[in-house]
Amino acid sequence: VDVNGVPTRTIRADPVAGWVEVIDQTLLPHRFEWVRLHTVDDAANAIRSMQVRGAPLIGVTAGYGLALAASADPSEAGLVAAAELLAGTRPTAVNLRWAIGGLLERLRPLTPARRSEAAWRGAAELAEHDVAVNQAIGRHGLALLRGLTPRRPGPLRLMTHCNAGWLATVDGGTALAPVYAAAAAGLQVRVWVSETRPRNQGLLTAWELSHQEVPHVLIADNAAGVLIATDQVDAVIVGADRVAANGDVANKVGTYLKALACAAHQVPFYVAAPLSTIDSSCATGAGIPIEQRGGDELRLIRGLNAAGAPADIRQVPDAGPVANPAFDVTPAHLVTALITEKGVTF
Amino acid sequence: VDVNGVPTRTIRADPVAGWVEVIDQTLLPHRFEWVRLHTVDDAANAIRSMQVRGAPLIGVTAGYGLALAASADPSEAGLVAAAELLAGTRPTAVNLRWAIGGLLERLRPLTPARRSEAAWRGAAELAEHDVAVNQAIGRHGLALLRGLTPRRPGPLRLMTHCNAGWLATVDGGTALAPVYAAAAAGLQVRVWVSETRPRNQGLLTAWELSHQEVPHVLIADNAAGVLIATDQVDAVIVGADRVAANGDVANKVGTYLKALACAAHQVPFYVAAPLSTIDSSCATGAGIPIEQRGGDELRLIRGLNAAGAPADIRQVPDAGPVANPAFDVTPAHLVTALITEKGVTF
Repeated sequence: VDVNGVPTRTIRADPVAGWVEVIDQTLLPHRFEWVRLHTVDDAANAIRSMQVRGAPLIGVTAGYGLALAASADPSEAGLVAAAELLAGTRPTAVNLRWAIGGLLERLRPLTPARRSEAAWRGAAELAEHDVAVNQAIGRHGLALLRGLTPRRPGPLRLMTHCNAGWLATVDGGTALAPVYAAAAAGLQVRVWVSETRPRNQGLLTAWELSHQEVPHVLIADNAAGVLIATDQVDAVIVGADRVAANGDVANKVGTYLKALACAAHQVPFYVAAPLSTIDSSCATGAGIPIEQRGGDELRLIRGLNAAGAPADIRQVPDAGPVANPAFDVTPAHLVTALITEKGVTF
Repeated sequence: VDVNGVPTRTIRADPVAGWVEVIDQTLLPHRFEWVRLHTVDDAANAIRSMQVRGAPLIGVTAGYGLALAASADPSEAGLVAAAELLAGTRPTAVNLRWAIGGLLERLRPLTPARRSEAAWRGAAELAEHDVAVNQAIGRHGLALLRGLTPRRPGPLRLMTHCNAGWLATVDGGTALAPVYAAAAAGLQVRVWVSETRPRNQGLLTAWELSHQEVPHVLIADNAAGVLIATDQVDAVIVGADRVAANGDVANKVGTYLKALACAAHQVPFYVAAPLSTIDSSCATGAGIPIEQRGGDELRLIRGLNAAGAPADIRQVPDAGPVANPAFDVTPAHLVTALITEKGVTF
């Protein structure tokens, strides 16, 4: 993609100098800034604090985190400790474990002296793999969207939740890949963008869609029901953080409510995710751990103050109790189709 | 109720001096301030800007608005113009029209000289009626909650949406009336409080429950699905802005999504509202107008700045398009029971 005229991806690395750079997504949509990671701790902190977010990008960042670790200490004990640190940052997204596990298996047989270079090469391959996967998801998803050509005049009206766009990946996006493919193919689309409290990743999606010139409308998460019920949505398309063996889908909290509304009104509900999101060791969604995050995500809002500078504001003044589950599980029977790099599964 | 040691209601009036005072709810939970209304325009503005909100309180405020109008111009033309102004402030809540219509019918047969006094008396009676209705709702709702005594140890776990507490009424609340009655009767209850974006009326509910010392936990609206699906909610209880003749319920946007989740998991979904909320002229929910409010309700967040003073912050930096439907309709078949002042209807 291209941001302010500069072609870029969400993550870049210099293996010789030994750094990785990611976009600090906690500052978006207010400010676009790169942050440089020098150590595996930096990488773990970036994932934990959600400077990087989105299951695919978390996986690739963790891969680069292991490369940073291998540069500092290529011993097996060092790599295992780094892998455990990274795997513990976010419990729900499974791509993280898939990326780290695969890379670790690849490094283990090598002599310590050869691990660092192999780790950087492996991380770069994870990044390239992600881009290719998302292109394929876009292609398969586009075929699906073409089949939804509206019976009435006007654009195809899609709805998404959270951000599963290029910001959530190395490039291209998962749920937004078919949207971008559709726009590129000349299909008229318009996207309802759900705010996605408490972290407001919908604002990232609106920012992305603005840059890609895809028509969109921001809504409160609460508005999904009335829009779906009054025939203003042709399909909902979301990403996934983990898919169980039976097809149950863990994704950003609030996804399940949209799936329920789709089922009640015969609106297709699509999930777009790489095959690496499927966790065959989880029989059903009940086995997927749901991350509980801190209450300050509800209490503090980041925005622009009167002077136009990014600032936090305290929305909830007292220290009253807050619960903040970050994901929910949509049962397989509510998922109309799963779009992966291999095709569409109904 | 009692705020900071001062027993109070949400609206008070001095017919002789010719003013009405309401709590400025746009400043809550950050600051508790009364605002004085001198004219029918003041009253209309207070309703439109949501300084007063909640279907029952809107109705009573409109009644007092008509009294302010009658003091200034008791002619029939003057009263009709005032009634139209007030009725046009919020299209969805029907109590507004019920209160104004009833009061207007009562003033019409009187000579202009007698209308002002009668209007103030009528508005005060509307206020008293609301308090009595809510006490009855609390009583009937309590009986319903007693039937839900949990099978496990611990409190009855209720969930509510928006604010249908004493702030939304003259006193006592509608959806929260049974909760307060339960707490007063020594039943252990705990309330999941949904933030209720974009206007965050859940923060008013949390503030109310803190003052009444009812245990509660604030959540993002998106979290309702996972909590209901994982057996952490014994019942959902909400208010209503208008109930159609067939039992369809218009309430704050997001209500419908909670009702869908309740139905999917056999969790009771209760609506508590005065009989005046039932609009027999609306055959079904499809006939209820849904208010569309301005996009700045999503773009700007009110909170406390670093100095602890109330301030707005711009959450969405650009002028991107926003849709903001303020209500949705829950079909009657998803409503387990309707609690009114006359009893419980299943």
